[in-house]
Amino acid sequence: MKKKLIGTARGILKADIIFKNAKVVDVLTASIYEADVAVVDGLIAGVGEYTKADKIIDLKGKYICPAFINSHCHVESSMAMPSVYCVEELSWGVTTLITDPHEIANVSGVEGVSYMLENTKNMPINYYVQVPSCVPATPFEHSGSTLDILSIAEIAQMNGVLGMGEMMNVPAVLSADGDVLAKLDWFRNKPIDGHAPQLTGNDLQGYVIAGINTDHEATTWKEAKEKLRSGMYVLVRQGSASQNLKAIMEGVIAEDIDTTNMAFCTDDKHLADIRKEGTIRYCVVKSIEMGMKPLKAIQMATINAARIYGLKHLGSITAGKQADFIVCDDITKFENIAVYYKGQKMERIVANRPSWNIVINGSVNIKDVTKSDLELAKKEKYPIIKMIPHQIITDKEELSYDDAMAGLEKGDICKIAVLERHHATGYVGVGLLKGYGLKNGAIATTVAHDSHNMIVVGTNDEDMLLAINELKNVQGGYTIAQNGKIIDTLPLNIAGLMSDLPAEKLINRLDDLTAKAHEIGVSKDVDPFITLSFMALPVIPKIRITDMGVFDVESFSFIK
Amino acid sequence: MKKKLIGTARGILKADIIFKNAKVVDVLTASIYEADVAVVDGLIAGVGEYTKADKIIDLKGKYICPAFINSHCHVESSMAMPSVYCVEELSWGVTTLITDPHEIANVSGVEGVSYMLENTKNMPINYYVQVPSCVPATPFEHSGSTLDILSIAEIAQMNGVLGMGEMMNVPAVLSADGDVLAKLDWFRNKPIDGHAPQLTGNDLQGYVIAGINTDHEATTWKEAKEKLRSGMYVLVRQGSASQNLKAIMEGVIAEDIDTTNMAFCTDDKHLADIRKEGTIRYCVVKSIEMGMKPLKAIQMATINAARIYGLKHLGSITAGKQADFIVCDDITKFENIAVYYKGQKMERIVANRPSWNIVINGSVNIKDVTKSDLELAKKEKYPIIKMIPHQIITDKEELSYDDAMAGLEKGDICKIAVLERHHATGYVGVGLLKGYGLKNGAIATTVAHDSHNMIVVGTNDEDMLLAINELKNVQGGYTIAQNGKIIDTLPLNIAGLMSDLPAEKLINRLDDLTAKAHEIGVSKDVDPFITLSFMALPVIPKIRITDMGVFDVESFSFIK
Repeated sequence: MKKKLIGTARGILKADIIFKNAKVVDVLTASIYEADVAVVDGLIAGVGEYTKADKIIDLKGKYICPAFINSHCHVESSMAMPSVYCVEELSWGVTTLITDPHEIANVSGVEGVSYMLENTKNMPINYYVQVPSCVPATPFEHSGSTLDILSIAEIAQMNGVLGMGEMMNVPAVLSADGDVLAKLDWFRNKPIDGHAPQLTGNDLQGYVIAGINTDHEATTWKEAKEKLRSGMYVLVRQGSASQNLKAIMEGVIAEDIDTTNMAFCTDDKHLADIRKEGTIRYCVVKSIEMGMKPLKAIQMATINAARIYGLKHLGSITAGKQADFIVCDDITKFENIAVYYKGQKMERIVANRPSWNIVINGSVNIKDVTKSDLELAKKEKYPIIKMIPHQIITDKEELSYDDAMAGLEKGDICKIAVLERHHATGYVGVGLLKGYGLKNGAIATTVAHDSHNMIVVGTNDEDMLLAINELKNVQGGYTIAQNGKIIDTLPLNIAGLMSDLPAEKLINRLDDLTAKAHEIGVSKDVDPFITLSFMALPVIPKIRITDMGVFDVESFSFIK
Repeated sequence: MKKKLIGTARGILKADIIFKNAKVVDVLTASIYEADVAVVDGLIAGVGEYTKADKIIDLKGKYICPAFINSHCHVESSMAMPSVYCVEELSWGVTTLITDPHEIANVSGVEGVSYMLENTKNMPINYYVQVPSCVPATPFEHSGSTLDILSIAEIAQMNGVLGMGEMMNVPAVLSADGDVLAKLDWFRNKPIDGHAPQLTGNDLQGYVIAGINTDHEATTWKEAKEKLRSGMYVLVRQGSASQNLKAIMEGVIAEDIDTTNMAFCTDDKHLADIRKEGTIRYCVVKSIEMGMKPLKAIQMATINAARIYGLKHLGSITAGKQADFIVCDDITKFENIAVYYKGQKMERIVANRPSWNIVINGSVNIKDVTKSDLELAKKEKYPIIKMIPHQIITDKEELSYDDAMAGLEKGDICKIAVLERHHATGYVGVGLLKGYGLKNGAIATTVAHDSHNMIVVGTNDEDMLLAINELKNVQGGYTIAQNGKIIDTLPLNIAGLMSDLPAEKLINRLDDLTAKAHEIGVSKDVDPFITLSFMALPVIPKIRITDMGVFDVESFSFIK
């Protein structure tokens, strides 16, 4: 093998393909030069002058640029099955994904992570996993699975696993909790992702010295700069909800800072948004529009991410690297690109149906629910979860019994319930939601961060029960019920998180459901399903609901 | 341990020392900011605001800069014992050495390498070894030792070994020689140093794809740039003999190239030169004088080298790194610096006498030599090794028997002999040398690249024999004989390469010997001992002499 590579690099042996007359995007020196690129056995054999090959492609001066790396993403958040997601990423030039299967791990544990790897193992993409470090995310809800240190170690041994996923349990790190230190120690000398929004000063130093390497939560340049200076790699995030590119890159450009330790990521980006503009490609193009030198932006999208994650075989157009690259006319726009993975051109493909070797459906397991489960206990005062337009943070209100009932009557307030859906324990939290806008009917989802129990919102118990049972029948998804009938359902039967539909169909179905939810009153300022899915996440201010009850984030306790 | 670090980083626990009011040289963002640096247990605990410590040092606005890394050096070439060499490097801010003990390995094999590590293991320096890959360097001479793959593997297991040293056998790499590929394979995923002067085009691609990571042989910017583009790390060399800094950095500055993959090294630098100006410090200062941004030059001297050699605990002033740094007033000059290793200030120390646990003297083992061994075979024509002023390359001449004898008579020509000195095999090569200038007497050395046999030059056999026997008696060194008497001798009794004298004494003694050699006629254009030591290296044009005879480098064969 090495002998063949050396012979091909030297031009003595025939290459498989020679790309003649390329402009090589050299991310090592941050410059461009003209050369041929020889490919053999899926690797770049050499860059220079080459003539001997089975196939010669004349690029006539087009660019050859290393393919992009998405340095942090939760594939499940696309609601597409992983192989479908990969196709969308590939079509915009991403051939490497660093994924954190945190969502499915909360539902299905080791088996869920295994499914993600299995489903993508024949895809033309470098699919890497960071082992979820914090499952369950909080002790204030019941998840489907718990990843203890041995489960984490079991996943760490799987092919395609690089290191440890985002360490969200900042307080445990800072208090030097033994279990958390043991997890960190397991992955020492491997990449360990952080998750430390707004952490600053000495506490940030403590978090870094614990051994955490990256952070993708910076929302301001000030925060990003402090994290860079602390020694962290900063992954600039541009997803569908969290969009930090502009704020951070403005600072980078203004201060002409060294970007060696920076890369791009999406965290969560929806399928429709990806299809429209890509992921990392969008970050590159926007950064260049903002004034970044093109080569510097491309470094962040390629070699920097490869270096951060120790992927020595990726990230540049040099001898011995995997032949993953983009061919295009304009490296400031990256439109009409051709994408090569291991030297083969990727035509837009329809992803395979999921591999059912590992059965990951059958994840909705709830105890029979009756009206009495959805009853609000009679109290003097009720805490109200108040949605804020275009935000996932909430406000907190308190109403008397009479006012709450009046609000329910008028339709200002809906009932919201979270049902434990993994082990049929019968846990149900019931509360009141303001600002959602639903006028008549019920809406339910099994996507409910982070434990992914079932959330149902409704104006009457009958439609709520109908929606609950519909999601039980289809084993997870989105559903809308009204006047005793199911209006529409999108099954998400892969762990109750993902659909097995092809991308275009899935995008259309998501649009349908969203439109129908708005038709029955859900406010235009709220995403009917996505915003809803965050109402169960008990770490975001100010008030949430889990299967264990209504939770006050500020006092970090349930409201009796 | 981790718990203590986290507590100290957070400012809850006391640090050992706090350096207040520092200007932190941040090589990650390439910028400077004001902060305190807390140190505990030899590590940087945190950078920010700190108050609790056993000791507080107010830096009053001085800089704290990461200490320097010399990314490639042959310590033996200083002729000081390794611990003495370390003191000289330390005093100019180098706390990390990536060494290639190629010289001593040629004399003493595994034991020699072990000695270098043993002799420095208690020194306040990070002393790393790259395992010599090419011992012996050529088949045209007899070395003291041969490092086969198992010897290499044995060294690879020693503490302090990082990867493989310079792969000088370029033809074997390019012909995909099995033994060489096996060596490279042994060190896959570890740093492998290259040594490929003037290698270019497809052959360079072949050398890179074989798995070689670094090169320090580029002498022009064109060569350095091609190597960078090929994917190699370029170590810019500035030693006593080979000085490539100016040529390369001029190009870097003119083209504003990315320097992420570049570092500085010395290869070979003499003790007197180090004492005068330092090693890496000199590279930084000169680069800045030439127009390099100070932070960029400092990156090359610190974090870049750490990254290239996978030294994750070194290279920056950030929490968790080893507390190796320089405190100074001016980061463009680095004069009057204070050097800290593991948080402790290094006072100029007298290095210990060598550790004799591993006996490395007794390396001069020659068969008894008589006049007849030094006799020139009678031939029609004699090849003459012609020294060129201030160069180590030589010219080739041919003289008739009569002309050669007349030259010897007049003193234009000297006799030169190389004697196998490791295993008393009795091999002696005898030839004629022009341009050395010696008028009366003999000069001998056991430093003779790369096999380090004994070289003796003389105007008469009696003095030559005297010099030979003197070096046998002192077990290696430099000596000068005249009129049947030894004028002066510097014993180099550590492998015949290094002295156990303290640095200042050694520098003085080297000056003495050099002056005395010039006094008895050696040309001012020739370094009496150093230039001589290269006359036995059969890979440098055009003509050399080994213990096996006079060697024509162009035809790569001995001259009969």
